[in-house]
Parts: sequence; structure tokens; C-alpha cells
Amino acid sequence: MKLHSYFRSSAAYRVRIALNLKGLQPEMAFVHLRHGEQTQPSFAALNPEKLVPALEVDGQTLTQSLAIIEYLDETHPTPPLLPSDPLGRARVRALALAVACDIHPLDNLRVLKHLKSAMGHGQAEVDGWYRHWIAVGLGALEAKLAGDARTGRFCHGDTPGLADILLVPQIYNARRMECPLDGFPTLLRIDAACRELPAFLAAAPENQPDAEG
Amino acid sequence: MKLHSYFRSSAAYRVRIALNLKGLQPEMAFVHLRHGEQTQPSFAALNPEKLVPALEVDGQTLTQSLAIIEYLDETHPTPPLLPSDPLGRARVRALALAVACDIHPLDNLRVLKHLKSAMGHGQAEVDGWYRHWIAVGLGALEAKLAGDARTGRFCHGDTPGLADILLVPQIYNARRMECPLDGFPTLLRIDAACRELPAFLAAAPENQPDAEG
Repeated sequence: MKLHSYFRSSAAYRVRIALNLKGLQPEMAFVHLRHGEQTQPSFAALNPEKLVPALEVDGQTLTQSLAIIEYLDETHPTPPLLPSDPLGRARVRALALAVACDIHPLDNLRVLKHLKSAMGHGQAEVDGWYRHWIAVGLGALEAKLAGDARTGRFCHGDTPGLADILLVPQIYNARRMECPLDGFPTLLRIDAACRELPAFLAAAPENQPDAEG
Repeated sequence: MKLHSYFRSSAAYRVRIALNLKGLQPEMAFVHLRHGEQTQPSFAALNPEKLVPALEVDGQTLTQSLAIIEYLDETHPTPPLLPSDPLGRARVRALALAVACDIHPLDNLRVLKHLKSAMGHGQAEVDGWYRHWIAVGLGALEAKLAGDARTGRFCHGDTPGLADILLVPQIYNARRMECPLDGFPTLLRIDAACRELPAFLAAAPENQPDAEG
């Protein structure tokens, strides 16, 4: 098993957390997104989407962080990252997808670059864009989590799972971009609970071999 | 079971296809996105994300189209929408997520509106944005599908599944926005095969009770 990662990729960060929770230690390869290494032919041959993470396993290259994490959960079921009941699974997947589909795609590096280079925006406008989608997306997540008795110490009950794996890297990014987070007390409480766990700590960008200041 | 839908929402379109493939006929409720009905308090109470689709089932409201479809597949396993082997499931989920995370979020209505109202772009620039992300995203999908022997009449083998459910609404949108599609022969072939099936046809926007010209 070999994970292609970049320390600051929040999609790679998710997979690193999942691997740690499962106690798996794949070989690591580092793809420097800011240097454009993901567009090099050797990497594009591995993943035509030219995105990290990519996980090489059993002669296949798995892509898309959520698909990789579901694969890890199916092939290494302990500890489970999803509840056992279908309604609970649907809730946790929906929380995860609210990050993966409604927040992160709008704020990732290739989109921010496009806003500058093709759409002609300056840094202040791009920062405003970033913070807008963070505010909208985290606001929806806060409402979903705060108003549901199934929310526990973590997003769903008292054990960490898929939704927490998506939440923590998104909060990390929001903090890095200095987004106001005062309106999201439930998210901050869960984020803090996660970051007490070694699996989450070891996966953090600053703790990666390819980390830069 | 009650589905909150909007004829032109491609996320609702996905769920409609899945319901049809499973032979399920929920009660329908229509949320007019262009009239802003999703932001009304009554709908926001149901889904704080203020997005369709939302599926009411067993006293819960399920959100996020992929989470809803996985729920339907778990609770109504025939016909299956995912392969039985973990590597195949990872492939199909990754294809689906390549649409759900890397194309659709950038081109949906709320983002296009924001590009106009907050970022100051005119229609031509917004159209260019739309077509850019379609070209990038469908290009990656075409490369993944064309270069893989597991691609069959449909995205994965010869029966329709989750990846096809995501592909068809995205191609529908691309056509409606007059995006060039010549470079994606595999996608067009699979899209045509899907649109021969009653489950896909009946789910199309123009065949919904709330359709407008």
C-alpha cells in the first residue's frame, strides 16, 4: 500500500487520519501541489484527475478520498468508521459529503488559482470567496450537528468516524485562512475532541515528512 | 418515503434515477430553487443545508444525494448499484465522486449566482467558468473510463450503477450549457446507453411534474 500525499492537501489529510485510525502504515510518496508535480506525466498516468490523494493497492490506484476511506473501512473493518445502521450511515455520509461537496471543492487550490489567473481577482477578493463558502458550509454543518441528539462527543455518538475525518481538515483550513469560527461552537468542540487523539494529531499537515513552514 | 426535488437539480436527478432503478415510488414534493423556496424557514427546518434533494424516511430527513443513494442501496439491495468487490466499489465510488466533488459543486446554481452578485461577473464570464470546470472534470473522467478494461457498456461493466447515475445528469447539464463534448466519446457512449433505460428517462428534468420550459 502506497499513499501519494501532500502535507497541506486536506483530502490527503482525511485519508491519513483514516489510515491512522485503522492502524495502517502505507509507504508514502509526496506530490508537491504548489510546484505542480500533480500535472507531471508520471503522476497523471497514475491518476488522470491529477489530484491527491491516490492510494496504490493490489495493483490498482484508488482515488477520491471518500472512496479510499470507504475501501479502507470495508477491507479493515475495525474500528468501524461508519455506524452499523443504515439511517446512521446515511447521516454520517451526509455530514462528510457536506464538507466534501459543498465546502472543500470551492476553496481548493486549483479553484483559487483559477479565480486569480482566469477570472482576474486579487488576493483580497479570493480571500473573501474562501471565507464566504466556509461561512455558508460550516453554518449548515453546525445547524445539522447542534440540532440532532445523535451528535455526541464526536459527530455521531462517542467514537470518531467518517464525518469527523472530514471535519477536522476543513476546520484546519478555515483556521489557517483566519475565517471567523465563533458561530460554530459544536464544530469547535468536536474538532478539539478529535485533536486529542493520536490518529488525528499524527495526520496533521505540520507533522508530515514533506511539511514546509 | 417523500422526496423533495426540483426538476432541474442534478443532485435530485441522481436520486430520481436511483429510486427508479430500485423500483421505488416515493411521494414527491417540489422545491422551486430559482424562486428561492429552499431558503424558506419551513424547508430550512427540514434541511439546514437549504439544498435539494432531501428524502424523508422513517421520521428522518436524509440529505446529500450520494448518501441517499447509498442508503437506498443498503436498504433495497436489488438491483445493486455498487459492485460486490471492494476494489470495484472503490472505483465506482471514485467515478461518482469525480462528478460530485470535482465538477458539480463548481457549476451549481448558488455558485453561479455568487459569481454574478458578489464577484461582479457578467453572463459570458460565468459561462466561461462553467465550461472550464466541465472541460477539466469530464476530461479526467474520460481518461479514467477510456483507459480501464473494467469499463463496459456502462461505467463499470454491463449493468448501470452509481457512476452512471452521477454521469448522466452531469452530461445533461453540460449539453444544456452548450459545452463542447466531442472530446469525451466514452462518456457520450455510456450516456446514450443509459438514456435508453426507462429508469433514466423517467428521471429526466423534462419528465418531472414541476418541469418548466
